[in-house]
This record gives sequence, structure tokens and C-alpha cells, in this order.
Amino acid sequence: MGSPIDDLLAALPAGRVLTDPDVLTAHARDEADLCDAGTPLAVVRPRSTAEVAAAVRVAAAHRVPVVPQGARTGLTGAANAVDGAFLVSLAGLNRILEIDPGERIAVVQPGVVNAELRRAVAKEGLAYPPDPGSWESSTIGGNVSTDAGGMCCVKYGVTGEYVLGLEVVLADGEILRCGRRTVKGVAGYDLTGLFVGAEGTLGIITEITVRLRPAPAEARALVAVYPAMTAAGQAVSAIVAAGHVPSMLELLDRTHLRAIEAYRPMGLDTGAAAMLLAATDTGDGTDLAAIAECCRAAGASELYVAGDAAEAEALTAARRLAHPAMEHLAAQAFPGGRGGLVVDDVAVPRSRVADLVAGVEEIAARHGVLVGVVGHAGDGNLHPVIVVDRADESSMDSGRQVFDEIMRLGLALGGTCTGEHGVGLLKRDWLAREIGPVGTKVHRALKRALDPDGIFNPGKVIAPG
Amino acid sequence: MGSPIDDLLAALPAGRVLTDPDVLTAHARDEADLCDAGTPLAVVRPRSTAEVAAAVRVAAAHRVPVVPQGARTGLTGAANAVDGAFLVSLAGLNRILEIDPGERIAVVQPGVVNAELRRAVAKEGLAYPPDPGSWESSTIGGNVSTDAGGMCCVKYGVTGEYVLGLEVVLADGEILRCGRRTVKGVAGYDLTGLFVGAEGTLGIITEITVRLRPAPAEARALVAVYPAMTAAGQAVSAIVAAGHVPSMLELLDRTHLRAIEAYRPMGLDTGAAAMLLAATDTGDGTDLAAIAECCRAAGASELYVAGDAAEAEALTAARRLAHPAMEHLAAQAFPGGRGGLVVDDVAVPRSRVADLVAGVEEIAARHGVLVGVVGHAGDGNLHPVIVVDRADESSMDSGRQVFDEIMRLGLALGGTCTGEHGVGLLKRDWLAREIGPVGTKVHRALKRALDPDGIFNPGKVIAPG
Repeated sequence: MGSPIDDLLAALPAGRVLTDPDVLTAHARDEADLCDAGTPLAVVRPRSTAEVAAAVRVAAAHRVPVVPQGARTGLTGAANAVDGAFLVSLAGLNRILEIDPGERIAVVQPGVVNAELRRAVAKEGLAYPPDPGSWESSTIGGNVSTDAGGMCCVKYGVTGEYVLGLEVVLADGEILRCGRRTVKGVAGYDLTGLFVGAEGTLGIITEITVRLRPAPAEARALVAVYPAMTAAGQAVSAIVAAGHVPSMLELLDRTHLRAIEAYRPMGLDTGAAAMLLAATDTGDGTDLAAIAECCRAAGASELYVAGDAAEAEALTAARRLAHPAMEHLAAQAFPGGRGGLVVDDVAVPRSRVADLVAGVEEIAARHGVLVGVVGHAGDGNLHPVIVVDRADESSMDSGRQVFDEIMRLGLALGGTCTGEHGVGLLKRDWLAREIGPVGTKVHRALKRALDPDGIFNPGKVIAPG
Repeated sequence: MGSPIDDLLAALPAGRVLTDPDVLTAHARDEADLCDAGTPLAVVRPRSTAEVAAAVRVAAAHRVPVVPQGARTGLTGAANAVDGAFLVSLAGLNRILEIDPGERIAVVQPGVVNAELRRAVAKEGLAYPPDPGSWESSTIGGNVSTDAGGMCCVKYGVTGEYVLGLEVVLADGEILRCGRRTVKGVAGYDLTGLFVGAEGTLGIITEITVRLRPAPAEARALVAVYPAMTAAGQAVSAIVAAGHVPSMLELLDRTHLRAIEAYRPMGLDTGAAAMLLAATDTGDGTDLAAIAECCRAAGASELYVAGDAAEAEALTAARRLAHPAMEHLAAQAFPGGRGGLVVDDVAVPRSRVADLVAGVEEIAARHGVLVGVVGHAGDGNLHPVIVVDRADESSMDSGRQVFDEIMRLGLALGGTCTGEHGVGLLKRDWLAREIGPVGTKVHRALKRALDPDGIFNPGKVIAPG
């Protein structure tokens, strides 16, 4: 046995192992602020499942940590480097292996970018619904490992609901195939579901079978503007209570409306407290009309129904500007690269959306920190976005305090510490609070069962036992 | 420490522990033929989670097996007694604890009967979709533990898709709460998904949080009759390929048509090779009309579209007669209580439905055994129903051979050994073939992690390691 690097070089074809310090630094982090990153030993770029398995076997022999990475667009530090780790980038396993329109399934490698899969299946008249904000750059492997959500979830659910089967490299380098290609199947324990959202702590996903849906009709959309957040919350509750199933039901608060208007002026009402964006994709205008009526009855000061699909897409595009607009705002507030955003992710019962926003506003005001709220009101999943000055330790401290108080509020409202971003490093302690000592014990038992030496992404999701 | 029974009596209130031999015999089996059942030590009827935990602690101390039971309507022997076991009946934990229309969730104890929950949520304008054939008698706890399906699955999926959270008594008697009440949530490993479908081998489910849907519109339905099974299969493929989403898409073969007609004459075409039953529940007649056109184009010899919801319900009721009609047929063929049915459950890619049926016919003819095929063609999940003479060992042997050959065929067609009934004892060896040695190893590792002494339902799902 040589050194870990020597053995890795011997086990893989030339060009797969990078140890250049600049490369290591470039791969050390995902997009989360507030999370530490260690110094890795190497970046490994396998081109096949067998090469992933070979790298894992070397890691297992040396007890070297293995951190799987996709596009590193995650928001919790789950893909951050661990000291002395092999960073296994799945970006090179990027082939769409199969699209079967008759069975409505696709088989892909983990490095396929979400948008690529969407475009490929659209050509077959099919849809792959999961649409995280990062969809133009994030990979399916990363989406699966974090169980990523998006704007579609209010109607279509998170990534996990589309994963039928997986190929996974286990901690001893063996290759597991689990799940199925059939629509239905309940054979044995749901291993597939266990690896989904496990953030690379139980195995490395090397192939994914997803189910597809028939392409929906063109979306229709509306926006409703509210003078008070409570009224927007009432509209959401009324829409749900009436049994409507919007394909999108998004909320933007005043901070976001102002940030977007400053970034790309489009005549948004920057005096409003909140804006809802609702869409339907059934091809039948009556459901959107009924949703419009719910919005109006809740006290909308303005209501605009898009005339056609292009206009609906324009409204959605405005919503997609929320993140870059807040980044722009942070950069303006703290120039010179100091401005940062901590994007939180909390899901509460739908009826508590307005309570959550009011609580966040109170917390932000008390700490003198700017926090905007945007997100998926229709399923109670909101993103409080905390603006921080990275160069100012007191600003970062305030940001951390605000983050913790928001987490505490979310749990107190009957919510969960993550609706779609996952746990990573950022929320490890909050997960432990949410699931309690018995839940933590079960997590550790499963981790030990599948990864007895703890080589896979150690310290992520759960603290070492 | 006394005897297991003494300790159990001491740990629980009076009346909870039954050891009368007749009671033990009555609780020894579910509805599966071809499966062995052992001799239990006691039937335990807890009335609370704390009582379940107390019983498990006694079992753990004595290393006594624990077999959880609901209504014992399962079809794989998963609830069958094991020698020396405590049979823990959850039938007494039968309260609907909460229905929250605003959040569209319900919280129930495991002994609640499926039909009761359906009726209770219907009063709130909501639906709990999973509809196993046993829905009038089976319990939600049993449905969750087997991840039961039904006719709704082609549109709405299996039970597991509706389970948001669980309370589970673990092997050491501790109580785990996992999952969530929010629509969204991806915090930590999917423990909820791991217990769903685990057939009581990892823990005892004592509370279930399910998600509900808005009540659908009244169903519309049609039947299409085919002179050849291949034509019926083509109709199914065409419906799926065109992107239609029926709420039901059922297939009955000639054996079933004849059995139903003999049992309740209603003018079915007993010369036909197959009948499809399709329904939609969107309230919009155009989708059923389009499905009708697919059925016609595939070569239906007869096509009948129900005029209203009542007529649609009558067609569905005829489909629901399939099982009692086959029981009647078996009783006629082998009188004196000798006639039995082995209800198989195999899911194949949708495009292989006709191939599966043709293969089953060939196998049945070769062995001289009567086998009917019925099931959920829309998701490729069919039930070959094998008619056996329980009093004739050679008939039972032939039944077993036919069963095995059908399993082999299902896997060869890219299918799975169970679409909705689960594994239990009946398919333990077939699960091992389907998932292979690596999958089996992972199952055993998870079992050991959560139940190190192997007290929970030993021998079910996976053979002891």
C-alpha cells in the first residue's frame, strides 16, 4: 500500500486525479455562507461507475474521507471539503443513458445538469418536474442527494418523488442497484428512498432512474399584490382550502419587490407588503380564475392575470430574479465583494406562512439585519434571505443569530428546518433538535450500518456519534 | 425476570394478553396460501403506544419474536405467526386522532380501517386515495407496512406516497417520531420511507400522519372489450403514450370475465379475451373521450361509455367482484372448502403487460392449472390468480411451480416480484433474486442496525442472515 494519492493514481486512468492547490481551492466549497470547508487531498474526476468504485476502495483502505460533489450549487455546505478528503466530482458522469417515452422514465448519470434533462425529455413531449432555483447549473445527482425542491413542488413534489431507482457505490466499493424501472414496485426496504436526500453520507450515487410526466399544458399565471402580509397568507390558505391545485404559488415580500425593482425596473409596487404569483398548467382557464377570486377576496390591492403563456413566463422570470436581485442588493449595501447572502429554508404548515414572515420581520428588526422573505407559499416552504457583510465579524455574528432564531421560530410553528435545501453542515445542529435523541440515534445506526468506518462525507447531516 | 407471559401480564393492564389456543389459532395467519405459520405464545392487544412499547420491552428482554398484526388481510404471510412469538394486534389502536382540512393531513392510529378514514375525510371534501382491494377491512397500519396499492395507483400512487410521518416503537422499546406534518420537508434520512413497506421487521408503527388530496370530481368510466389480449395491451400503451392520466385502468382476462358472469350474471362478453375498465376523475369529459378513442383504435370489439357517475360506479363494482368471483369459481371447482386461490402480484413495464399475460397463459396451460389474470394494467401491475385444490398435494405443488414460473417471467420482463402486496414469506426468495447479493447484504445491515437481536417479525421479507 502506498500513499493514498499514489494508490489513487495507480487505480485510475491518467488525468482523473488533480492535486493542484488552485484546483483544490476551487472545489472546496458549495454556495453556502456560514459553513467551514477543510483542505482536501485531491479532486477525483471519475468517468464511470467502476472508476468511482475504484476511488472508494482506495479511500476505504486508507480511511480517507470521500466527499461527493456535483455542481457545488448547494446551500448548506454538504459538498464542502473535509480535511484530507478525496473530493469525488461526478460532473464527468454526465450522460443521459436512456429516455423511454412509453414507460415515461429516463436513466441518467449523476452529472447531468437538470436543465439538460428537462430539455431532452421535453423533445419527447414529457416533463421532469423538479425545478430547483439552480436548475440551469445543478446536477441531477446533487438534486437527488439533497432531495431538492423548487417552484413546482406545490403541485408536483420534490425530487425524491421522481426517483425510481439508483445505482450506488457503497463504502466497501461494492455496487448496489436498487429500486426499479416499473411504475409500481414495493419489493423490500426502500433503499432508493434512503439514499435520496442522504447528501452522500451513505453512498455515492452513480446512476439514477427517474419517472417522467406527460408535458403539462402551457402555464397561465397571475400576480396579486397585498398591502399586508396577513392578507397574502389568507389568500394562500383560501386557495388551498378551496381545493385548488396551482402549479406554482410563490410569495415575495417587500424587500424582494424593492430589490427586484432596483435590479430590473418593471413597475413593481414597492410600497406593497407582499406579492403572490400563482400559476396553473391544466390548460383550463377556470382554475386560474377561481384562484384569482381567492386572491381578490383576501384583499389584493392589485390583481393582474397574464393574457397568455408568454406573459405568464415573463411573470415567472421576474420571480426568478429574486436571488440575483438580492445578491445585487447585498453587493450595493456592502461593496467590494463583502456583501453576502445566507439563504435559509424553512417549511411550516401552510396556515402559518404569514406568522413565519411576521416573526422573521420582528427578528430582523431586533437585530438590525436586513432579511427578505421569498418562497413557495403554497407548500409553506419559505426562504428568509439574510444580508450580511462578510468582512465584518459583528455582521456575520448577527446573521448567525438571526439564522438561529428563524430556525427556532420555524420549529415552534410546527415546521421543519429544511423544506428543500437539505442539512449539510449549516443545519446539522438544527436537525438534531428537530429529530431529537431517538431520531439522532437511528440516523447514527443507519450511518454505521452502511458506512462503518465513516468515510462518506463525514460530519455532514449528523455530527459524528 | 419471570416467564415471558408472566412479565407481559405484569407489564400490561388486565385483558390485553390472550393465550387461549383458539385465539392463538385464529390469529396465526393472514390470507396467503402457500405460507407456513408458527405457533405463537400470546396475542397482545395494546391500547396505546406506551403499551406497545411495554410489550416490546418484555419481548426484547426475553428475545421473544414480535409479529405485528392489523386485520390480517395481507396476501404474503407477512402477518403469520412465528413460533413462540407475541402477536401484537394493533386493531385496538383505532382512533382517527386528527383531520386538518387546511393542511390537508390526517393523523391516525394504525388500527383505523382504510374505509373509515376514507369516509371521514370525504366529509371534509378531501380524499385519501390508496384503495387496496381489502379497503373495507384492512387497516392503515397494515397498508403502510406493506406499502399497499390499489386501483387508484395509476394516477395517485401507492400508500407510501401519502405517508408524511410516523411514530414507531423500536426494538429496544424506545419511541421514534419521524417525518413531518408540513407539505414539504427533507430533514435528514427518510426514516419514514424506510419503515413504510418494511412489514414490521424494523419497528412497530403506532401512529401515522397522512397527506390528503382535494376530493376529485365524480368518476367517469368506460369498458372496452377485446378479442385478443395483445389488442388490450396496445390500448394501454396508446393511452399512456398519448399522455392521458386515467384515474383507473384495469384489465380482466377471459377467466375473470367468465368467473364474474357465473357469479353475478351481468351480460359480460365471456367469449372476449380481455376487458379494459378505464376511468377519469377530472370532471372534464374530453379526457375520457380521448381514452375511448385509444381503446377503439386498438381494436375494441365493444366499447361502452358510462352515462353518468352512478353507471361508472356500477362498472367499478363489477371489477371489484373479481376476487369473490374467483373464490366462488375455486369453491365450485374444488368443493368442500378445498378450493383455494394463490393471488400473485407482479409489476412489469407497461409495454410488457400483454407479454406477461401471454406468458402466464402458456405456463398455466403447460401445468394444467387454471390461472386468471386481473389487475392494474395502467401501471403494469397484474395479479395472476392461481386456482388450487388445498386438499390435493399435487395440485398445491403445481400451484407452487406455476407461481415460481410467473415470478421468473416477471423478472425476465424487467419487472419486480411485487407491485403492491409486499414480500412476507411468500416472496422472500424471489426478493433475494430480484435484489441480488449486494441488495440482500444492505437489507441485512439495515435490519441489524435497527433490530440487532432480530425480534421484529423474524424471517419475513429477508431470510435470517
